[in-house]
Amino acid sequence: MTDQTGQTRYRVAVIGGTGPQGKGLGYRFAKGGHDVVLGSRAAEKAEAVAAEVRERLDGTAAAGSVTGLANADAVEACDVVLLAVPYDGHDELVASLPLAGKTVISCVNPLAFDKRGAHGRVVNGGEGSAAESAQELAPDATVVGAFHNVSAVLLWGDDEFLDEDVLVVGDVVEAKQVAMDLAASVTGRVGIDGGKLRLARQLEPFTAVLISINRKYKTHAGLRITGLDAPH
Amino acid sequence: MTDQTGQTRYRVAVIGGTGPQGKGLGYRFAKGGHDVVLGSRAAEKAEAVAAEVRERLDGTAAAGSVTGLANADAVEACDVVLLAVPYDGHDELVASLPLAGKTVISCVNPLAFDKRGAHGRVVNGGEGSAAESAQELAPDATVVGAFHNVSAVLLWGDDEFLDEDVLVVGDVVEAKQVAMDLAASVTGRVGIDGGKLRLARQLEPFTAVLISINRKYKTHAGLRITGLDAPH
Repeated sequence: MTDQTGQTRYRVAVIGGTGPQGKGLGYRFAKGGHDVVLGSRAAEKAEAVAAEVRERLDGTAAAGSVTGLANADAVEACDVVLLAVPYDGHDELVASLPLAGKTVISCVNPLAFDKRGAHGRVVNGGEGSAAESAQELAPDATVVGAFHNVSAVLLWGDDEFLDEDVLVVGDVVEAKQVAMDLAASVTGRVGIDGGKLRLARQLEPFTAVLISINRKYKTHAGLRITGLDAPH
Repeated sequence: MTDQTGQTRYRVAVIGGTGPQGKGLGYRFAKGGHDVVLGSRAAEKAEAVAAEVRERLDGTAAAGSVTGLANADAVEACDVVLLAVPYDGHDELVASLPLAGKTVISCVNPLAFDKRGAHGRVVNGGEGSAAESAQELAPDATVVGAFHNVSAVLLWGDDEFLDEDVLVVGDVVEAKQVAMDLAASVTGRVGIDGGKLRLARQLEPFTAVLISINRKYKTHAGLRITGLDAPH
């Protein structure tokens, strides 16, 4: 479905929609005119957070709808599914969802923390990533990786757009385009095609570097790619 | 040694100084007022490239010196050593150099290429990086990681500074500061402290993402960190 401006209007299920990353991305997508269904284990919790997002959007011209459902029902209601869940329990949750035929966007970051700070967790002996695991667990879905590096604080903050780029990786161009389109709601410009799905191995743990910078410089660091003319 | 502006003037051995990354970084360091000794397996080859860099710098006010020596002699002549060598043969070369007591900066990228493009090579089962390998092989040196993501083409190009940030990782603050200072010769501002040395696992293969972007968008992509006031 396209709106009056010609922008494709997506209907996005946000799994983990009551967590800070999912809620923040859901808010931005709806603010950008997409319809959002926040998913949670319990429908009531999802609906309560959806009400909070709707209140935040009140008065925003052309905002999309925001509702809340249990995770599997949210997936059933949408063509696009954003996985915004913690890495712990990720595989079991993904395997339980009816993802066949869906465009699935993973922003899952397999990170670990110790007294030396954040660092990447090793997935599949270094030859895997959360996004690739999701693709293996849902072979009839099309999985891309994106939105790994955006700050939940800034997503829920007051800036019109985040001063960052969204890198999108995947093996299917059309599925990458969905995430690149959605990125415009977050950053004000389409996302950047960062290559094949296996490069999620690089995007996911890069968040550990940004967390280190945040700690050192007391900021919310983001990533921009230089050398590209806007709009890409 | 400090120059008249108060900037620390380093004496940097560039191992792999005849390759595009080493030559380009050596050029930029010397342009910024640091003294550079390009190293190569054969002193004559190093001296030939040094002459080329000197010619390029001719007339540049306050440029540092550029000379060429065999790798081990270059190391002996300097306090700071930049490892700008291919990952193939990296470990053997590092083990052969007299690095004890030196500040060693690794910009080595363990990458592999196949018909799907560039991707990161798995070092030590996913729990290692070229920089960490160098630290293990030279336990009496202090190794940091930096300059992984800068384009050799842009380094040798005509822009006064590159529109990128240099991320520096390491476990010793003073050693990171050396690389952060040197970064100013490349980007016009000091580098960014990106955290502990183990995060080189993230910086090194991120270059594969930039290579993918370069291929897709026909550019020389770079990385900037947002959310930091300049100067850092």
